[in-house]
Parts: sequence; C-alpha cells; structure tokens
Amino acid sequence: MLENTGRTELSSLGEFGLIKQLTQFIEIVNESSIKGVGDDAAIIDYKGKQTVVSTDMLVEGVHFDLAYVPLKHLGYKAVSVNASDIYAMNAMPKQILVSLAISNRFSVEAMEELYSGITLACHRHKIDIVGGDTTTSKSGLVISITVIGEANPEDLVYRDGAKEGDLLCVTGDLGGAYVGLQLLEREKQIFMESPGVQPDLEGNDYIIERQLKPEARKDIPVLLQKLEVKPTSMIDISDGLASEILHLCSNSKVGCNLYEEKIPIDPSTYNMAREFNLDPTVCALSGGEDYELLFTIDQSDFPKIKANPDITIIGHMTSEKDGKNLITKGGTVHPLIAQGWDALLKK
Amino acid sequence: MLENTGRTELSSLGEFGLIKQLTQFIEIVNESSIKGVGDDAAIIDYKGKQTVVSTDMLVEGVHFDLAYVPLKHLGYKAVSVNASDIYAMNAMPKQILVSLAISNRFSVEAMEELYSGITLACHRHKIDIVGGDTTTSKSGLVISITVIGEANPEDLVYRDGAKEGDLLCVTGDLGGAYVGLQLLEREKQIFMESPGVQPDLEGNDYIIERQLKPEARKDIPVLLQKLEVKPTSMIDISDGLASEILHLCSNSKVGCNLYEEKIPIDPSTYNMAREFNLDPTVCALSGGEDYELLFTIDQSDFPKIKANPDITIIGHMTSEKDGKNLITKGGTVHPLIAQGWDALLKK
Repeated sequence: MLENTGRTELSSLGEFGLIKQLTQFIEIVNESSIKGVGDDAAIIDYKGKQTVVSTDMLVEGVHFDLAYVPLKHLGYKAVSVNASDIYAMNAMPKQILVSLAISNRFSVEAMEELYSGITLACHRHKIDIVGGDTTTSKSGLVISITVIGEANPEDLVYRDGAKEGDLLCVTGDLGGAYVGLQLLEREKQIFMESPGVQPDLEGNDYIIERQLKPEARKDIPVLLQKLEVKPTSMIDISDGLASEILHLCSNSKVGCNLYEEKIPIDPSTYNMAREFNLDPTVCALSGGEDYELLFTIDQSDFPKIKANPDITIIGHMTSEKDGKNLITKGGTVHPLIAQGWDALLKK
Repeated sequence: MLENTGRTELSSLGEFGLIKQLTQFIEIVNESSIKGVGDDAAIIDYKGKQTVVSTDMLVEGVHFDLAYVPLKHLGYKAVSVNASDIYAMNAMPKQILVSLAISNRFSVEAMEELYSGITLACHRHKIDIVGGDTTTSKSGLVISITVIGEANPEDLVYRDGAKEGDLLCVTGDLGGAYVGLQLLEREKQIFMESPGVQPDLEGNDYIIERQLKPEARKDIPVLLQKLEVKPTSMIDISDGLASEILHLCSNSKVGCNLYEEKIPIDPSTYNMAREFNLDPTVCALSGGEDYELLFTIDQSDFPKIKANPDITIIGHMTSEKDGKNLITKGGTVHPLIAQGWDALLKK
C-alpha cells in the first residue's frame, strides 16, 4: 500500500509533532462540531437532539494481523465498526475521537497510512475527527475510537423493543467477512512457507473486502425513514447472526423462529465456505464482522419493506416460552445458540 | 491491596461474562444519562447545553508500572486525568466510556480491583459509566477512557483567550507527582535488589498520593462560579507547568512573565526533591502529572481571587513579541522552554 519514500522514526517528531502531522489536514464538516482538536476537550452542540455515544477498541494480534491487513484498510475498518454501532441505534454519527498506542517499530509514514484510512472513512460517513490521544506502546498497535452521534429521541431504536409476531429482518448478506478471513489466513500460511509465492486472491474481491473494508450501513437509517418504518429493535452484526438475535431476544424478552433457508448468503461466500469445508450457514450464524443491521419490525410494516432488495426477512419473534429456534432447510428445529468462532474453529 | 481470595481466570468468564461481572453494580446518578451500558450505544441528553468530550489512554510500561501502582489507584487515576480535561474547559464531567485491553496474566479479581478504583473516582466526580469495550491484549494492560461533560456555552473557557496584562494563576501546588514517582522508582529498585526489604514510604504520603491518586480539581469550576470569575483561558497541568504555559501563550498569541519565587511548591515536595538532588523549581516546571488547573484572569478580577488559599498568582501575560520568560529568584530572565522529563532525566 505504502510507497517506499523512506522511513521517518516516530521519535524524530515526538508526540506533539506526530499529532500535528496526522491532524493537519482535518477539516470540520458538521455544524455541530463547535471545537475540534487543539484544546483540553472538544465541544459539540446538537441543539436539543440527544447524544449517542459508543466506543470500540482494536488490538493488534487480537482483532487484526498486519501480515495481511494494510494499515489504510485497518483505519477505515476502525471507523466503520464504530459508526455501525451508531447506525444500529437508528442515529447518525457526527464526531470521533481517535486514540492510538503505537510502538516504535512503526514509522511516521505507516501512521499516516493508517490515518488516511481513518479520514477516508470519516469523509464517507461525514464524521469529524475532534480529538484523541496518541501515545507510545511497548509492543503492538492499539486503536481506541469513540464515536458520537445525534438523534431525535423519538427516532432511537433500542435492543429491547421487539414484540411477539414482529418480523426479523437483516440487511445485505452474511458470512462473507468470516470466509474472507479464512482466505487471508490461508494465503498468509502459504506465503510464510514459501515466501516467493504471491497470494492468490483473484476473483475473491467481494469476500476480501467484506473482511478488510466493511461498510457500515449508513444508508439504512435513511432508507427506513424514507420507507416510514421505525424498527421495534435493532443491533449491528459484529459477533455473528446467532449471537445478535439472542441479544434482541433476551433484551426484549421474546423468543424467535429463524429460517435457515432465508439467511442471505452471497454466492462467492457460499462457494468459498465450501472450499474450506465449512457450512455456509454456520459462517453466517457464527462468523461475525459483517456489520450488517439486524432489526425487527411490526407485521403491519411488511408491505413497506417487502420489495426492498437490501432487506431480507429471515424469521419472526415468538413468545419467550417458545424459545429461540433455528428451523433448518430440512424442516427440523434446533435451539439457536451463540457459539461464536468456537463453532467454526472446532470443526 | 487485593485480599487473596483465589484467582479466577478471565477465560472462565469470557468477554460478556467479564463485562457483566464488572458492570453489575453500576448505578446511574445523572439525569442526563438516558441509556447506559447494554445497547449498541449510550444515550445522553444535556437538554440544550453543549457537550464537552475528551479522551486519554494509559498504557502499561509507558504511563504506569504495576510494580508499584496498585490497580485500584490506577483505575482512580485513569478517571481523574480524564475528568481533569473537562474541568479545564470550566465544564462538568457526567459520563465516561471505559475500554480495557487485558492480557490473560490478569485475573478477574485484579480487574475487579481496577474497576473498584474507577467506580470510586466516578462516585467522587458524580460520573456515570455508560459504556466501553473489554477485549484481550497480547501483552500489557491498556486503559482508554472517554469522558463526556456538559456546559453552558457562555461558561466554556478555551486555551486561546488570554490577553496581554492578564494574571497567570495556578491551583494547589506543583512538582509533587514527579518527586513521588522518583521515590516509588527508588523503592522499586531497592526491592528488586533486596526483595526482603519493605519500601520506606513513611512520612511521604502527600507526594505518593500526588503520583498514585491525583485529584482532578472538581472544586475549581464551582469556586470560580461562586467568585464570579470567568478565566480568559485555562488548561490542566498534565505535562508540567512550562509546557502548559507555552500552550496558553501560543494558542492565545501572547507572551508571559513567570516568577520562580511565586510557583507554589509543598514543603514535602521541596525536601524530597532536594534529597534526590533535583531542583524543586525544575520538578514543578517539567515534572507534570499534577492535574492542577492553570488559568488566566483579567486584572479587574484580582480582588475576587487574591484571598483564596487554593489559587496562586505566578505571573502575567505580556505581548507576544516580549517572549515567554522565567524570572528566577535571583532576578535573571530566562526564556521559558518545555523540556518535559528530558530536563529531569538529563541531570
């Protein structure tokens, strides 16, 4: 990703110098950003709207492997996963604070590359960088982002509003980010064993992008408003479909029936899962990192969303005593459980 | 600090279990905290007031050494340093988000100890914990806290409002946190060389507390309001007096005269500095971590603050072309420079 223009050591700039270098091109686009970088704190004014705030931390070796994640993509993803949490409240992100702990094995140029991904995502989501902290780390890279957004109180959607009979909907398609990761891991192994071999990622752009450069669903709150649909509950899919459905059920005190045949899976995800001897449905249920939105709507809203290609109805909510069930393609009923990656790794 | 009640591995709880364990006793005290932990994001409503937001990251081995920093103190300090940034805007902190990256060498009990310090400080500052992120780290402990507060727009004080002739004021006393650190480092060395020797910290409670358990100046915005004084500029002292004065000068485009003899230094700080062959003034100028507030006021406000034991006038602002000067006890004039810890370490 990075052109070889020489290496500038972080120590040559110092903390204040690095912050200046990274933040010099920041432009403020939102009227609500009263005061950005450069004081003890940033000032925001949503003029009576409510403030929505969330935070996510990405740790090297845990959430990303720089052997195959370009720094620019990493910066982009760090903003996406945070923005996704705000969209999941049916709100709009407006500001972020970016904290970085950086070891001295990174150069100034590498941090500029990371920041270029952060600013690209901010530009896409119309988010202002208004603050942060930059510090040294003894080992890996840690990225901690806090995102702040706004909403009219009456538009906010929580996890606890789903009712018996509500339709369970999901945006986009699932499982891609997980099989993309499998592919990247495989190519890393091959590269480590035979460093001369170039990675064979051709034709797999979609699943690679799902993993490396997830797009938070900025369009969905806008679409829902246009369709005049307010979900009864909503959550974003970071840990896998099963885990997120169970969160909606337990917070809303309802059960659910999820239909395996309805789960949207892209053909390239399906084929790559098969290549890895993985069950595509399990990838969607347990893979995570798709950053799609999962929500429930009242049945009366069905006509408004039924023709939309971005939204798939995958089941419905039941009473709590009926439990949380997965109805397989064969028609058998299984209890829905959140296995996370365990389910995949233990194959 | 921690009673030996056995060790529970983090892996035995998992991420969701640990979050539940740590957050189960959180109580919301502020009316503005509409929705706390438990959804994709927290919701805040300051009802027309402006939002003030800041973030600070503490990294093991860089900002703290667990050889002598008890986890409870560390949690307390992590909240204090963040709250201090909000007080420095003449605003009041109301909510925080706490992100932790934890390696598996820590037990659940250790994290409870850290959290007990966090909640103690929150209780003291009337701050609600409304969110965060808890994740694994490959090596050390990283604490990233974002603090959110409120202010009436007309009360906010920035770094850029100081004018020529304004009086330069500081709260409390300076240098204590730095000499406290020297003492702790010395006792750590002695302990490492002779593990049987208990640390000799007796009689040094004040400087030890200044380092381990700094108290952000919650009382100062309240006091200033009572005195009907609005500073023209303000900043908190995290990097040392010299560095912070230079920030006010460059942001406000003014110069300053700082009088060495006026810098408030506690006798215990003075004596311990001497014991280490350190110049107490240099400790105050370059030591940092005192988390006192530095501010400028219009000369006409002098009668309102002159009798206050918590506030010391240490100089005045001049025109930019007159430069930033330190006038020593001997009456000589030196340019004021921010050396940070370099000045101390190079002795």
